[in-house]
Amino acid sequence: MLSTAQTLDKQDSLAGLRQQFLLPQNTVYLDGNSLGPLPVAAKERAVEVVNQQWGQDLITSWNQHAWIDLPQQCGELIAPVIGAAPGQVICCDSISVNLFKVLSGALKMQQGRQKVVTTKDNFPTDIYVIEGLKQQLGAASCELVLSDESDIEAQLDESVAMLLLTQVNFRSGRLLDMQRITEAAHARGILVIWDLAHSAGALPVKLDECKADFAVGCTYKYLNGGPGAPAFIYVAHRHQTAFKQPLSGWMGHAAPFSFDSDYAPVQGVKQNLSGTPAVIAMSVLEAALSIWSQVDMLQVRQKSLAMGEFFLECLKACELDKELVCVSPDSALERGSQLAFQHEQAYAICQAWIDAGVIADFRAPDLLRIGFTPLYVSFEELWIAVNKLKLIIENKDYLSEAYQSLQTVT
Amino acid sequence: MLSTAQTLDKQDSLAGLRQQFLLPQNTVYLDGNSLGPLPVAAKERAVEVVNQQWGQDLITSWNQHAWIDLPQQCGELIAPVIGAAPGQVICCDSISVNLFKVLSGALKMQQGRQKVVTTKDNFPTDIYVIEGLKQQLGAASCELVLSDESDIEAQLDESVAMLLLTQVNFRSGRLLDMQRITEAAHARGILVIWDLAHSAGALPVKLDECKADFAVGCTYKYLNGGPGAPAFIYVAHRHQTAFKQPLSGWMGHAAPFSFDSDYAPVQGVKQNLSGTPAVIAMSVLEAALSIWSQVDMLQVRQKSLAMGEFFLECLKACELDKELVCVSPDSALERGSQLAFQHEQAYAICQAWIDAGVIADFRAPDLLRIGFTPLYVSFEELWIAVNKLKLIIENKDYLSEAYQSLQTVT
Repeated sequence: MLSTAQTLDKQDSLAGLRQQFLLPQNTVYLDGNSLGPLPVAAKERAVEVVNQQWGQDLITSWNQHAWIDLPQQCGELIAPVIGAAPGQVICCDSISVNLFKVLSGALKMQQGRQKVVTTKDNFPTDIYVIEGLKQQLGAASCELVLSDESDIEAQLDESVAMLLLTQVNFRSGRLLDMQRITEAAHARGILVIWDLAHSAGALPVKLDECKADFAVGCTYKYLNGGPGAPAFIYVAHRHQTAFKQPLSGWMGHAAPFSFDSDYAPVQGVKQNLSGTPAVIAMSVLEAALSIWSQVDMLQVRQKSLAMGEFFLECLKACELDKELVCVSPDSALERGSQLAFQHEQAYAICQAWIDAGVIADFRAPDLLRIGFTPLYVSFEELWIAVNKLKLIIENKDYLSEAYQSLQTVT
Repeated sequence: MLSTAQTLDKQDSLAGLRQQFLLPQNTVYLDGNSLGPLPVAAKERAVEVVNQQWGQDLITSWNQHAWIDLPQQCGELIAPVIGAAPGQVICCDSISVNLFKVLSGALKMQQGRQKVVTTKDNFPTDIYVIEGLKQQLGAASCELVLSDESDIEAQLDESVAMLLLTQVNFRSGRLLDMQRITEAAHARGILVIWDLAHSAGALPVKLDECKADFAVGCTYKYLNGGPGAPAFIYVAHRHQTAFKQPLSGWMGHAAPFSFDSDYAPVQGVKQNLSGTPAVIAMSVLEAALSIWSQVDMLQVRQKSLAMGEFFLECLKACELDKELVCVSPDSALERGSQLAFQHEQAYAICQAWIDAGVIADFRAPDLLRIGFTPLYVSFEELWIAVNKLKLIIENKDYLSEAYQSLQTVT
């Protein structure tokens, strides 16, 4: 298997990008689906924005360094990665806050319908935000419908206002068919919100082509924007006049610096801005995003699929495929860029693996989750990771007391 | 006046704090009420959180460097500065977003009342957020009432649900009487939200003592947290059970990492958390906040008042007090920590002053706004600033074309 890995690495057209990231020595990082690593450009920008722009140029940086344009600028850098033409994506706030904006605004556009359908095992914040909106508006205006992931289309009828789906399941990695589901929803007059947390930067997303209505996503996973980096929001051009979100802060005003007391939203996706942008975080993000102009998302997908398959082969070769039960779809084409394995000792195994220099993550109650990030992980590293895992499992290292105490993890 | 300035500087017990800030050479910074300068500790922390915590320790930093606790940690550092006992302040999101949370949640507590009173010349985002909530809930559930600043108490009757006031007016610097107004509102069953944007870190704020119900504030002005740093929110202990805010994201859940599909809010002020915290921004903020444990807010107030009075005296001595019409209250005790002057050429004067090494700011349509920040500005600097202003105005330097074109400013 090692020689196969080395051959695959030699053929890898993305291999050169690794040098644009700073990763710790002797570490295999399989958790870029939770927190992307530090890009060299982001490290440099952090120093620049703090020491020079804030420290020396102070308030004049709003103009001099175009701080005021960062949300749009970052949005336009993300747009091609998620298949969006310009003018439809902007960076701001968190996914949770952006979901509230989109759900509130879109529900207003769907007068007479109040159901919001989502999946039972969607990432909890997506469900919680619908619950929060329901609490606020009352059950007569907003009703939460939880669907099985395998049964979404059966839930779609003319009483449904909105369908909120995460394109790639955060646990299993299952990839939903954006095109087909969006079409099925539109046929019944339903608006669709796609949460791209686990797909933006992981695979080619085609929002415009699939006629998606709205989308949200985060930038700290596959987009490597830094811990807690600002999220983004997509509003399709055709909805930008009718859509009005309720968190109407001064940055979404047509003329924020005229300090009018009447709120007049700016035209376009920029109306989603609310408060003052998070300048330091967004500058770092902007630098991190610069890498995507050099990347072909089809190549990313190709390598990601190959990595997943190679990882499974390594597991098999090491006879770990019985001990670790794969809960991700069998077909690579039905997966995002991750694999999840069930094991009653998943937490302890994950901790022991980290100690051995391989970082993956644990998802309650019993999943070991492995992310494949083609920009900076090699096939040889996957081979190393599986071999270390083999030792941990064979020797039952994970039973050590140090690995058994459950801590908060993200 | 110079010798007076030098005497005042010698007597200044806060003078030693200046060395904890990095300010550009040969610059007098009178705009800390818009963007506080870079604290040495924040500069160091930025490198630490980016290079070491993100770059080297990666995802393990959520536990290892307690990223998960940053919102509470920052909140507890702010609490004593605004007169709040522990457990009532948390850092998150922006003022605009936090206002939406507080207004929504508090309005629910005031069943049968729908009026939200604020002042006509409040900072626009405060008004816009009420307008957004009104759009979302409908006029029958939320009504905006705009009051003159001089006439607030006349608006307060039993039909009013909420009173939203900014303690220090962003233009004039007028300081409202928190104690008296809060009492008057409570006597009529009205809940009061204080916006501390221009008072947190500027003067002793006494939320608990005044029995304030809710407060919001930003950290990038007098608290020096960095451009676009996260905001904060205060919920008085007595309201923490009844108050439920609608932006219910996973970080406000009682057990975010158990990934339950039902939203169960965590007890206390922490329920105001919504999405993943802005780790880089909040780490920098935490370092910036460390200075406040060394500072007595009464001394800050004393120096701030003296700075305002000394600045006015310098203007008078330079015979500028007729040309620049002070629109701030005459009595120092009725002002926050700023002065505003009307001049039809205020924008151009501000630009020319910046070129001469004195940074203040302009507020549309015709105000020159000067902030006094006792932690890092000396009396001698005020004297230098006024003397430079005298030259600009005497020589009409501001008429130069370079200073006449209006740009975006914050």
